[in-house]
Amino acid sequence: MKRNQADELMALQDTLYFIGGKWRIPVINSLCNGNRRFREIERSIPGITTRMLSKELKDMEMNKLVKRTVYPDSPVLVEYEPTEYCRTFGSIILEMIKWGKAHRRVVTQS
Amino acid sequence: MKRNQADELMALQDTLYFIGGKWRIPVINSLCNGNRRFREIERSIPGITTRMLSKELKDMEMNKLVKRTVYPDSPVLVEYEPTEYCRTFGSIILEMIKWGKAHRRVVTQS
Repeated sequence: MKRNQADELMALQDTLYFIGGKWRIPVINSLCNGNRRFREIERSIPGITTRMLSKELKDMEMNKLVKRTVYPDSPVLVEYEPTEYCRTFGSIILEMIKWGKAHRRVVTQS
Repeated sequence: MKRNQADELMALQDTLYFIGGKWRIPVINSLCNGNRRFREIERSIPGITTRMLSKELKDMEMNKLVKRTVYPDSPVLVEYEPTEYCRTFGSIILEMIKWGKAHRRVVTQS
């Protein structure tokens, strides 16, 4: 099969653009791991600030990656759920985890 | 098998850190596609500037992702070659291309 390099590069850049920044993939990963509440997600990602997570979840809601549900009890409960679309990042995330584990030694040495 | 989420997140963040920025993955992809000379690589990635490619290749040489060879003829010929280590990004890149192709419509609509 002939590979169209320009086409592949465009697909690659679309994905990179969509992944954009250092927090989207960890947030997707956290949601796919079953975390649903803001504080749960926040606690699962060391280093993320409340402000960054809040911005990321808003962007992800706009991009249909996350569904936000408000249960208007008292106290109000807000839940974030990954959409099917969000879960399509699964294989990329798994490959990234695999790479990170295999190359931990190399990365920490450099 | 029990998955250690903290461990997986660390591996994921190592990978994201290493990929860092929008140009490293396209440059790795270009090298793996057989481009060897600076101008070849540059031409294969629309949007990259000479300055950014130069910086990226220097960083990648330091990180042992690329081997730079100078052939001291006249005119001097410089070639960049991906290392074995560089090629370990292959599966991540393939998954990203797959994602980008599958979701082109979604991305361009949003």
